[in-house]
Amino acid sequence: VAVSSPLQALILAGGSGTRFWPLSRRLRPKQLLALEGGESLLRQTVERLQPLVAPESVWICTTEALAEAVRRDLPEVPPEQILAEPSGRNTAPALGWAVRSMPEAVRRGPIAVLPADHRVATPEAFRATLAAAADIAAGSGRIMTLGVAPHRPETGYGYLEIAPEAGVGGVRDVVRFIEKPDAERATAYAASGAHLWNAGIFVFRGDVFLAELARHAPDVAAGLEAVAAEPGRLAELYAALPSISVDYAVMEKLDSLGTLPLDCGWSDLGSWEALAEVLPADEDGNAVRGPAVAVDATDNLLVADQGTIAVLGVSGLVVVRTGDTVLVCPKERSQDVRRILAELESRGRGDLL
Amino acid sequence: VAVSSPLQALILAGGSGTRFWPLSRRLRPKQLLALEGGESLLRQTVERLQPLVAPESVWICTTEALAEAVRRDLPEVPPEQILAEPSGRNTAPALGWAVRSMPEAVRRGPIAVLPADHRVATPEAFRATLAAAADIAAGSGRIMTLGVAPHRPETGYGYLEIAPEAGVGGVRDVVRFIEKPDAERATAYAASGAHLWNAGIFVFRGDVFLAELARHAPDVAAGLEAVAAEPGRLAELYAALPSISVDYAVMEKLDSLGTLPLDCGWSDLGSWEALAEVLPADEDGNAVRGPAVAVDATDNLLVADQGTIAVLGVSGLVVVRTGDTVLVCPKERSQDVRRILAELESRGRGDLL
Repeated sequence: VAVSSPLQALILAGGSGTRFWPLSRRLRPKQLLALEGGESLLRQTVERLQPLVAPESVWICTTEALAEAVRRDLPEVPPEQILAEPSGRNTAPALGWAVRSMPEAVRRGPIAVLPADHRVATPEAFRATLAAAADIAAGSGRIMTLGVAPHRPETGYGYLEIAPEAGVGGVRDVVRFIEKPDAERATAYAASGAHLWNAGIFVFRGDVFLAELARHAPDVAAGLEAVAAEPGRLAELYAALPSISVDYAVMEKLDSLGTLPLDCGWSDLGSWEALAEVLPADEDGNAVRGPAVAVDATDNLLVADQGTIAVLGVSGLVVVRTGDTVLVCPKERSQDVRRILAELESRGRGDLL
Repeated sequence: VAVSSPLQALILAGGSGTRFWPLSRRLRPKQLLALEGGESLLRQTVERLQPLVAPESVWICTTEALAEAVRRDLPEVPPEQILAEPSGRNTAPALGWAVRSMPEAVRRGPIAVLPADHRVATPEAFRATLAAAADIAAGSGRIMTLGVAPHRPETGYGYLEIAPEAGVGGVRDVVRFIEKPDAERATAYAASGAHLWNAGIFVFRGDVFLAELARHAPDVAAGLEAVAAEPGRLAELYAALPSISVDYAVMEKLDSLGTLPLDCGWSDLGSWEALAEVLPADEDGNAVRGPAVAVDATDNLLVADQGTIAVLGVSGLVVVRTGDTVLVCPKERSQDVRRILAELESRGRGDLL
């Protein structure tokens, strides 16, 4: 079955995560950071789609606060396709609103929904799997997700349990969604062959998705209908939408969600530690971004956004220096960086958040 | 025996130590830093002398590069008594040159020679011992030194071996100077009752010192004579002086050097670790200067000269943030900070030194 209209990409870029503090800030969240190369994660997300998805077929759903920065970052994406949510209501309203913003003809074709802040080591493999899923979604109308074959017992991701038998084109049925597991269950999942990491990537025909949204989340669909009917009251009506994730509102409830396993060196870059794992390191195991000197120091992540970092006799640390702050913590504690933000907030240092 | 003329203080402030990098720089060495209170170590050195030594009786020997900063730091000291060496030739030439700069009448009285960058916890005790030594030096003409009773087996200091019996006024004869010992000998010295730390503090009559300099270091004395004879060639002739310490050139060779033990909470503040030991700490053992947030972190020294420091889950570290740099090292490695400077120098980053 051939793809009837060009694949669209809908990139969700409204996140305001704090895990890359102090580099990430409220107005410069993770997706706008160049954590690895010289380009932001958002820009890398757009570029790895080419030539499968042209910039004219890219749609971005972000927030009003970030829209201007997103436009500057992606000048080749039509500005009217950079959609700014007036408030954050989680992914079900965001997806519904964005798909409804597309012209009817576009909406009848396949749309890939992609997070803006993930990493892919081999874009060719990523595009091949995405194209295959788009073919299936366009041809059969089925909603597809791409799951990542787990290569370690990760407790930081949600999982998809999949059916033992592959169908036509290698598609596996998703049996159920599983929340982040404990270490014991994660170990079992990683070895089972029946579980994939939920990467938050979906491919569907827009009209199919809206129909499923209306069926499984009628309150969201009705709210979006009200938003569309009164554009002058957008902020007010959008804020009244239920705040709910698309997994919970729609995907878990589908009669038949299909998945194709994705093998492309995927990471969600969920922490400084995760970044350290993918950055190239020197002979002492130090991964360095920006000016840094390391003496008798091994296995550190040193990120100097401004100024120079000098470390002596330390191992396994994250050191991140910005113009106003420096963070120092062991790699394995980098998921807890939000505790520093809470402390700063409580001390009235919102200027650093 | 009464002091015949007011005690003069000659403060040696030409040091360019690197142990407090990155806070200390070539043009802002340790003695000009406010490491503890709000005032520089130099200024604290002057203030702790009062009322024993009035500012009008203070003399500073520093370098040309630092002279302006010293004048700004000590506006109450007569500017003509802030002497700027054209080049560094160690302490024997510096002391001889500075004493010769004093008027004849002043030179016949007692002079206390003091480093500019040490710490004293109890200034009253310090002044009392210094005054007693000045009385002896003025009355008997003897050269005196103040030695610190060791309270730990310190390998970072030189020692004075002293005679077992105290003489008049509690004076002990110095038997010999001992270089920095290894740990075993330091342990023996700390327990012996016959050893004091060499704090580099001397009290003498200026004319007596110059006579001893002429006797034991005739090349230095002759060079200083030449400097005095041709003021127009100061830079050239000063640079030609032998570079030698006053301990080695004069003090070790005296027939009779006396000492009074000093018990005043003295520290030479020789490293970030030494500073951490004297700064007040919070309930988690963190000593903090400037804005800092510590979460699950204990026994760290956090010095933020510019910006904010945030640490999470680390212990026993030194973190020092300046406008252009951050240093991270374990406290016990802080003596090795010069290795970072060597590395920066080799990379052409002299701007950070």
